[in-house]
Amino acid sequence: MIYLDNAATTFPKPEEVYARVSEVMRFHGANPGRSGHSMALEAGRIIYNSREVVAKFFNIKNPMQVVFTSNATEALNIGIKGVLEQGDHAITSSMEHNSVLRPLKALEKKGIIELTIVDCNKSGEISVSDIERAIKDNTKLIVTTHASNVTGTIFPIEEIAKLSKSRGILYMVDAAQTAGVYSIDVEKSGIDMLAFAGHKSLLGPQGTGGIYIREGLHLDTLKEGGTGSKSESLYQPEMMPDRFESGTPNTPGIAGLAAGIEFINSYGIDKIRTHEEELTKYFIDSLSEIEGVKIYGPRDISKRAPVVSINIGDEDSSEVGYIMDEAFGIGIRPGLHCAPLAHKTIGTFEQGTVRFSFGLFTKKEELDRAIEGIKEIVKSI
Amino acid sequence: MIYLDNAATTFPKPEEVYARVSEVMRFHGANPGRSGHSMALEAGRIIYNSREVVAKFFNIKNPMQVVFTSNATEALNIGIKGVLEQGDHAITSSMEHNSVLRPLKALEKKGIIELTIVDCNKSGEISVSDIERAIKDNTKLIVTTHASNVTGTIFPIEEIAKLSKSRGILYMVDAAQTAGVYSIDVEKSGIDMLAFAGHKSLLGPQGTGGIYIREGLHLDTLKEGGTGSKSESLYQPEMMPDRFESGTPNTPGIAGLAAGIEFINSYGIDKIRTHEEELTKYFIDSLSEIEGVKIYGPRDISKRAPVVSINIGDEDSSEVGYIMDEAFGIGIRPGLHCAPLAHKTIGTFEQGTVRFSFGLFTKKEELDRAIEGIKEIVKSI
Repeated sequence: MIYLDNAATTFPKPEEVYARVSEVMRFHGANPGRSGHSMALEAGRIIYNSREVVAKFFNIKNPMQVVFTSNATEALNIGIKGVLEQGDHAITSSMEHNSVLRPLKALEKKGIIELTIVDCNKSGEISVSDIERAIKDNTKLIVTTHASNVTGTIFPIEEIAKLSKSRGILYMVDAAQTAGVYSIDVEKSGIDMLAFAGHKSLLGPQGTGGIYIREGLHLDTLKEGGTGSKSESLYQPEMMPDRFESGTPNTPGIAGLAAGIEFINSYGIDKIRTHEEELTKYFIDSLSEIEGVKIYGPRDISKRAPVVSINIGDEDSSEVGYIMDEAFGIGIRPGLHCAPLAHKTIGTFEQGTVRFSFGLFTKKEELDRAIEGIKEIVKSI
Repeated sequence: MIYLDNAATTFPKPEEVYARVSEVMRFHGANPGRSGHSMALEAGRIIYNSREVVAKFFNIKNPMQVVFTSNATEALNIGIKGVLEQGDHAITSSMEHNSVLRPLKALEKKGIIELTIVDCNKSGEISVSDIERAIKDNTKLIVTTHASNVTGTIFPIEEIAKLSKSRGILYMVDAAQTAGVYSIDVEKSGIDMLAFAGHKSLLGPQGTGGIYIREGLHLDTLKEGGTGSKSESLYQPEMMPDRFESGTPNTPGIAGLAAGIEFINSYGIDKIRTHEEELTKYFIDSLSEIEGVKIYGPRDISKRAPVVSINIGDEDSSEVGYIMDEAFGIGIRPGLHCAPLAHKTIGTFEQGTVRFSFGLFTKKEELDRAIEGIKEIVKSI
């Protein structure tokens, strides 16, 4: 199968990632941060080293501000629910994934928060001044994606961070679609919280993700439990990252995530981004020449992540996805991509879109095959 | 190293578990339940099959009532916080792990619930009539461990379930220390919710766990996000298990957990239990003959899981743990084991205990080495 579904999860992973997961399971299988014997200490070191790798990657000064989670969704829930309290107002965008929208809507429905969802334009672009206009006296948090998982549209996170800071509002970024391809410097950009998926462009295994929480920020906890620290206390400890990491962690997965990031470091993130941008440009340029194919999102490659949503005439996106798989052996994702308002924004709520997403290991020849497939479908309808 | 820390996490795992995790990462690495192409469907089938394996193992009629989590702590948080609402009363025991106590204490501190912690006796045994006496008009939930992670003391979960049912109260069991060694039949025992760790006696990899929720029970959600289902809705879907499984799941880990359970099924859970009971009896019998060694928990092997807490005179448990590791190459866990009230119950809150815990792969010779080590320490003090 030609795998063009890297926005859902990247595949394959570098050999180093598979090898590291296996190695940790087989040889360092103790429970980290608990027991104190040499094998448990080694597992603890593996986790700490992984924390350092993540911290360095995002320019986070203190690795203890990196919390590992099971995926980006958990990270977003920790940030959103940890910060927002009764009476607060939050702002987000219409291009968000349900992992941002649903926690916010749940808080709104319970009467805990007020919520403003800022509309984006037809290309999925947000206006920072629209965000500014949405700010109220009780606005506590702005949370946006770094890039849409539907159109790839990149958000101006530095500008939004600047606005947030100037108004004393917290800013959380959902970097699920960008971490590992686009450089993110939390210090320079002034982000307060960063949620990331481990299994997408960071090339780690499924079951990994994390959140960076700026030092000094105090969040309520989503889960409490054993942390291996302050065991005498019946209350969750304040210390980071234990406060948000209850229970046995996914040690092999976290080690695999670090291996993924180290692969990116040695391969070069710029080289990865250039490769994916070239693929995206080639794909969009090729499709632009086919009559009946509608391409969503910005045309300017510098404004989009390597995710391309299209439609073929009025064909149902699921039908197109089915044919791509069955007739051409190409794996893509049709439908709403867990981002319903993004589809309302770009006008595809009924039809959905056919989403092609590229990764480090995607080859130009694979895109050619996909383009051929699309041409065939256009011809046949 | 001689690994006697299986209550923290089992090590090693069966070869089948390592192999399955690798296979799924390498060959079935798509995102399950999302995209619809053949590789994603295969990943979805892997998850569903794993759900069936878990369901069968605990005699759960509908596999969709099995929710996968990142560990038992998450499962306990989902159950406890999903059920308890403003004004409810909850009952638990003094032998619980912090993964039960801390979520309950957090709810109590916020003024959401009232909490009664029923004291156990010096062997960690609970009296069902003490639980009954603690019931109030607003009691909504009883949550107890199946076996203490400190003393191994087994709780009479069928009796507690019967009491709960007769009083219209929900009963949740923390089976972190028992699932995989002791048969648990949720239908027969009448348990409403069962939390389990995947990486302990179920022999799965770290990063896995789950919760069974009885059909018809409606819980509030801990996390919301993308579920791949009802993507058009801004609210978390009601359907199980999606309601509690937001974001990309740990597909390789879940597959590895199923491989662990299948290993147990083919090896025989009774054979595993017998082996671990024999080890426990042998260890306790041997230590009973050493003057100066204090053994906690019931002496009757049928009343305890393969977890043995001891102390040597007044020696600090951490000191003993350190010597066991450094001088004898034996990995055990000293301290409070994330269960502070259990140590208050058995009178070891200051000293902690030195905990030896056995697994399927533990050999009698390894216990002999540990017993020798303990004798040496006794002599030297």
